[in-house]
Amino acid sequence: MKLRRKIFTVISLSITLVVSAQYIEKNTITAIYQNALTSYDAYNNLNELCTKASGRLVGSKESEKAIQILKTQIRRLTPDTCFLQNYVTASWRCKSPCEAILYNGSKKESLQVVNLGLSGSTPDKGITGEIVEVHSLNALDSMGTNAVKGKIVFFNRPMDNTKLNTFEAYGGAVDQRSGGASKASQYGAAAVLVRSLSTDPNNFPHTGVSRYKEGVVKIPNISISTNDANKLSLINKQNRNVKIWIKSDTETIDSTRTANIIAEIKGGVHPEKVILIGAHMDSWFNAPGANDDGAGCEQMIDVFRIFKELNIKPVNTIRLVLFMDEEMYQSGSKAYAEFVGKEKKEHIVSIESDEGGLLPLGFGIDANDSVISSIQKLTAQLVDYGIYKTGKGFGGVDIAPLKQLGVPLIGLTTNSQRYFEYHHSANDTVANVSRREMQLGTAAIASLVYLIDKNGIK
Amino acid sequence: MKLRRKIFTVISLSITLVVSAQYIEKNTITAIYQNALTSYDAYNNLNELCTKASGRLVGSKESEKAIQILKTQIRRLTPDTCFLQNYVTASWRCKSPCEAILYNGSKKESLQVVNLGLSGSTPDKGITGEIVEVHSLNALDSMGTNAVKGKIVFFNRPMDNTKLNTFEAYGGAVDQRSGGASKASQYGAAAVLVRSLSTDPNNFPHTGVSRYKEGVVKIPNISISTNDANKLSLINKQNRNVKIWIKSDTETIDSTRTANIIAEIKGGVHPEKVILIGAHMDSWFNAPGANDDGAGCEQMIDVFRIFKELNIKPVNTIRLVLFMDEEMYQSGSKAYAEFVGKEKKEHIVSIESDEGGLLPLGFGIDANDSVISSIQKLTAQLVDYGIYKTGKGFGGVDIAPLKQLGVPLIGLTTNSQRYFEYHHSANDTVANVSRREMQLGTAAIASLVYLIDKNGIK
Repeated sequence: MKLRRKIFTVISLSITLVVSAQYIEKNTITAIYQNALTSYDAYNNLNELCTKASGRLVGSKESEKAIQILKTQIRRLTPDTCFLQNYVTASWRCKSPCEAILYNGSKKESLQVVNLGLSGSTPDKGITGEIVEVHSLNALDSMGTNAVKGKIVFFNRPMDNTKLNTFEAYGGAVDQRSGGASKASQYGAAAVLVRSLSTDPNNFPHTGVSRYKEGVVKIPNISISTNDANKLSLINKQNRNVKIWIKSDTETIDSTRTANIIAEIKGGVHPEKVILIGAHMDSWFNAPGANDDGAGCEQMIDVFRIFKELNIKPVNTIRLVLFMDEEMYQSGSKAYAEFVGKEKKEHIVSIESDEGGLLPLGFGIDANDSVISSIQKLTAQLVDYGIYKTGKGFGGVDIAPLKQLGVPLIGLTTNSQRYFEYHHSANDTVANVSRREMQLGTAAIASLVYLIDKNGIK
Repeated sequence: MKLRRKIFTVISLSITLVVSAQYIEKNTITAIYQNALTSYDAYNNLNELCTKASGRLVGSKESEKAIQILKTQIRRLTPDTCFLQNYVTASWRCKSPCEAILYNGSKKESLQVVNLGLSGSTPDKGITGEIVEVHSLNALDSMGTNAVKGKIVFFNRPMDNTKLNTFEAYGGAVDQRSGGASKASQYGAAAVLVRSLSTDPNNFPHTGVSRYKEGVVKIPNISISTNDANKLSLINKQNRNVKIWIKSDTETIDSTRTANIIAEIKGGVHPEKVILIGAHMDSWFNAPGANDDGAGCEQMIDVFRIFKELNIKPVNTIRLVLFMDEEMYQSGSKAYAEFVGKEKKEHIVSIESDEGGLLPLGFGIDANDSVISSIQKLTAQLVDYGIYKTGKGFGGVDIAPLKQLGVPLIGLTTNSQRYFEYHHSANDTVANVSRREMQLGTAAIASLVYLIDKNGIK
């Protein structure tokens, strides 16, 4: 064979290989989407989780049930390994549902309320106080102790509905929930009511975590539904002699045994290198937690199912981590990061799903520019599947500690418009998850895992 | 002033004007989105329509109520004109809800059913028949009269869940509903049951129109929920002696007075040129019609509100047309096309919203390539608002007849994943419309109208 012909043969062989590799890749992604869209397993699993283990806050019996249910769901898929990473953390609970009654002169009426995480208690008979409505933490500094002492501070700044992305609107209002009680307590307030972090008027109180500065008295901290917040604000402006009675009964437990779940499909070539996919098992005590984050857990389990069913043999190890306690202390996230620190297995990327089982739109990447650009190139072909918004962004709360180990963080970005109708409330039900939307998210993640595993990140 | 300086001044002035025009355009679009996202008017209007005029099929009292409700909502915005285009059409109705009972040996059980549009009646005491399950119209040709005569033909081919766009899956299954009864009747069938056109298993029977060839006996044509279709199929395969009793009581009315609503904000420069925005008022007798197409009507009315509130004075006339009877005979659409034929006003474009108040993703354009390219350029800046899928596509059923008059047709494209959970069923409720998603659709349409009005279509 002449040299020219040899070169020609090598070039055409290379082109053929590249073309055929692209062809296989494209076909595999088609197969992943078709499999995901026609499967009901994850949705049935989600239903099992949210029915049998609704309100699975760390330390609760429901959280223990959730671990068992999810472990069984994973083991059914016969991964190479599946084990519990047991650890100990603090926890907190409502001993009984909190209550609030509005007294407007001789009229009385129950309000739609729920405890915020880490909220303190009232005496058994409850407490009664006047309302001081404010719209920011700074307002308390201007008003000072005299205006606040012994009163119930009512934080009522709504989420900003002009924001296109509701997570931004959430970020702009969440300080009232997370830091309001601590500050009000410093000025001698008896308790705090916080307008629920929900985009639109509804009857669901939405909970979430609050923090108290060290040494500050943990006063009761209570979320009120947006509808009742609007009503309360109006009544309090229009009438004298408006008071609220509230009752809160909570406790903190110093030491609770709990666990993360870790499962793997071992890599055929590089079993020592890990592509992590994760979500969190816990949900607030009042929430079925279908979108936050039952859907994330079931999507990640379903990635395993799809790899098994399509007989995709990964080059690297695909590791599924279901974290406990994202909502309260992020103890599962910390425990896993410690585990990785000791284990010293290279994590190629970590991928989290914690924006609900809603229509996926792209991936947010928390990594350096060359990693972002590499993932954008890999996922360019997913635009046809609606994955068009991939770029710099947020990875996820559970995988966040891996950043300091140099691991690129990737979060599934979903349509955020409905998320805060559900978030941290009794309205976060399976009925509010569309199976097809959830499965499109699963397919997007499975495709990303497949593409990174096959091509690496350059 | 020297010539050079003059030229320089003219150039910089032109640049300044272009830049400032772009600046105004960008700011106006921001203002449109902010206004839409913070307004509750359209959602409240939708609630009024779907509560007071649920099941507003042409010819029904509810359809008359709908016309009055929508006219009042429009007039509240003080458009330059708002009138009814009265016309006469045929109509059809269920005199009483149809019923079906499954007899399996000695067991009996009610099935979730609803009449399909134009379905014939049974005698008062109903009819009883054996089930013949088929998956296509062609299957009847192979089976012939002997296998079908006197029986109840059960069309049970599901929508294809591998399709990414559920409208495609609908298109692939709808022949059973629209043409199954006519064909089965030709082979002597007693009645037809059709699996509901819904993506996933649920308990809602979904209706829709059917057609009978001229001269063919209009046998009863009944939709059965996907859950019951699955159950019936299984039982019919596993048991002998399975029969169904059905009762259907319908009538066709030759002549019904009804109307379209037409309203305008007159153009300041070209009042004789029209940008049409439209949607349809009617819904199936069993459906609140929140997504189909109450949301479309309220979005278009809200475009008027936004133009008024932001004081946008259009160059051309913005004409709102709310069509009657999209579901059954498209008589409103035909009546309006006739009106345009006589009126002879130039329609620059016609824009329809009839894919539900769901997350908007782009615009489908039914026009020549240069119009498509022009609209793609205009809407490029809407990608930041999630409007990224604009190109050749479907305009809308109501505006379709305007195509032969050379009018470009544009349809709002939405996230189709959930649409067929609601479509033509009692599940098409306001609770299944997210206000923010609906308002993003409104803002996209208002922005498109503004951009076309300002820049024209080149």
